[in-house]
Amino acid sequence: MLPDTLTAQQYFEGIRKGDTVLLSRAITLLESTLPAHRILANELLQLCLPYSGGSLRIGITGVPGVGKSTFIEKLGQLMVAEGKRLAVLAIDPSSRKTRGSILGDKTRMEALSQDKSVFIRPSPAGTALGGVGSATRETILVLEAAGYDYLFVETVGVGQSEVAVYGMTDIFLLLLIAGAGDELQGIKRGIMEMADIIAVNKADGDNVQRANATRMDFQRALHLFRASESGWTAAVTACSALTGEGLMEIRNMLSEYEIATRKSGYFTTKRQQQLVEWFDSGLQEQIINRFRSNPANAMVIERLRQQVVSGEQLPTPALSMLWTILSNKA
Amino acid sequence: MLPDTLTAQQYFEGIRKGDTVLLSRAITLLESTLPAHRILANELLQLCLPYSGGSLRIGITGVPGVGKSTFIEKLGQLMVAEGKRLAVLAIDPSSRKTRGSILGDKTRMEALSQDKSVFIRPSPAGTALGGVGSATRETILVLEAAGYDYLFVETVGVGQSEVAVYGMTDIFLLLLIAGAGDELQGIKRGIMEMADIIAVNKADGDNVQRANATRMDFQRALHLFRASESGWTAAVTACSALTGEGLMEIRNMLSEYEIATRKSGYFTTKRQQQLVEWFDSGLQEQIINRFRSNPANAMVIERLRQQVVSGEQLPTPALSMLWTILSNKA
Repeated sequence: MLPDTLTAQQYFEGIRKGDTVLLSRAITLLESTLPAHRILANELLQLCLPYSGGSLRIGITGVPGVGKSTFIEKLGQLMVAEGKRLAVLAIDPSSRKTRGSILGDKTRMEALSQDKSVFIRPSPAGTALGGVGSATRETILVLEAAGYDYLFVETVGVGQSEVAVYGMTDIFLLLLIAGAGDELQGIKRGIMEMADIIAVNKADGDNVQRANATRMDFQRALHLFRASESGWTAAVTACSALTGEGLMEIRNMLSEYEIATRKSGYFTTKRQQQLVEWFDSGLQEQIINRFRSNPANAMVIERLRQQVVSGEQLPTPALSMLWTILSNKA
Repeated sequence: MLPDTLTAQQYFEGIRKGDTVLLSRAITLLESTLPAHRILANELLQLCLPYSGGSLRIGITGVPGVGKSTFIEKLGQLMVAEGKRLAVLAIDPSSRKTRGSILGDKTRMEALSQDKSVFIRPSPAGTALGGVGSATRETILVLEAAGYDYLFVETVGVGQSEVAVYGMTDIFLLLLIAGAGDELQGIKRGIMEMADIIAVNKADGDNVQRANATRMDFQRALHLFRASESGWTAAVTACSALTGEGLMEIRNMLSEYEIATRKSGYFTTKRQQQLVEWFDSGLQEQIINRFRSNPANAMVIERLRQQVVSGEQLPTPALSMLWTILSNKA
């Protein structure tokens, strides 16, 4: 199934012409860790680079059951109605290869998945060469070369994947539900503070009042935090993906954010920082992996680590000992 | 001035006997990065290890002006009155060597600094061998071998030092001021969520009402977060280090926290996790430093990093190129 019969140039031309079958195969190529695929992938990325950067990259998180798919389905339809093209990448933190769940995502976003201007694709969360979420970051660039205007990167609010998504998107949207008992929102520590927009979903029927109460609680809580570097104050809003109420407001907030941060220069600064962090984290990861993949190193590390865990030895002397042992062996 | 004329055993015996001059010299030894000092320091740590672990380690943070020194001075006096011995480590994020500011700290904590059962000392924040704050972590162990019951590790709420302090203490206390305009509390993102106790200081005179309003705002905001792993719900309280109001309540909270988490086993689990994190972060740092300290490696890294910053090349291909270049050179 892996696409190794085409050249990077052929992939590139297909992607630019709007061939979504080739686009899909190109993304599979980016996810591969085989050295030959990696070389081809790097060539393709280099071709796409001048055509990348044109989309608004939107990160979305929220606990399972908050209604992320329906939310993206309805918000996406507003964008499609404006003639925009959009892509949805769903990060599945539970598996490194998630092709099995494509069908699941497409079923959950029924209207979008049948639209020619929409591309939906799961993305593996696993650590790849070049840092956490590296394949997703690369996929973003290829989707931009393919001309998509809005990229949604969706993640479940568990594990470390939100931090990775935050590090590769321009704006971060946190979805909440009202009335679940505020303590049970399951908001992981630190996530609320990454959010540029907080939307309390399912503000419909009996739930409207509770949703508004939750909205006000969060509005108040946000005032206790320092403003973000962007100069943008996180907006809190209530909406219903079911009735569509409040979605246009969120759609407009996305544009306001983009306009404001592009004007202030923060938009560009943040993207450049993200590139450098991508390089630095990938570099660190590769240096450490190379060191630890040497079986002799791994054995000594594990032995000393056990001595630290058992309380026999402190970390600093254990580390001194590590280098002594390794230099004696060399 | 560096103490290299004594043996580890002599340091150890002096420390156990309550010789604070030797204790100070031992801490200076721990802060040294000279290889010969490091060997002696490791020996000393190994001797202290069986006698360490007996204190309650309390992290304290808050912006400058919040009254941290006065707060520790007054809270410490309550502990001293119970016959307890305590030590205060003040982390100065602005410098690696802070011996110059000892006098400053001692002046700010006038009563405590004259008490025989109290030890006050600044601690350098700089990255040492073995990870961020390694010297402070080691100092904690030596102070425990010296028999101190309560260890305060104080840090200014700026920079990365709070995260380091959080990683080496049992309980984390955030000090706030009321009425400064809530948005201006200057709370760095993520800090509120590390706090086990939040105390709104300066609840005295005209300020009592505002302090209580701030206390309630934070109380409400905390409900929006998921409970911490410890099972302990962060407590929010108002106090005045000036009048002493509310300090006994905080003193009791510290004991309640210790009793509750020791009983649940969280206390021990957390300390063990902290040891492992200390080892792992130190290991990573040393592997990376060793790699980068090779001038040939550093040169290639810097060149590729510049290509990423300028947008010429993406991080993943740049990293592939790094290993190709280095293996050709080798």
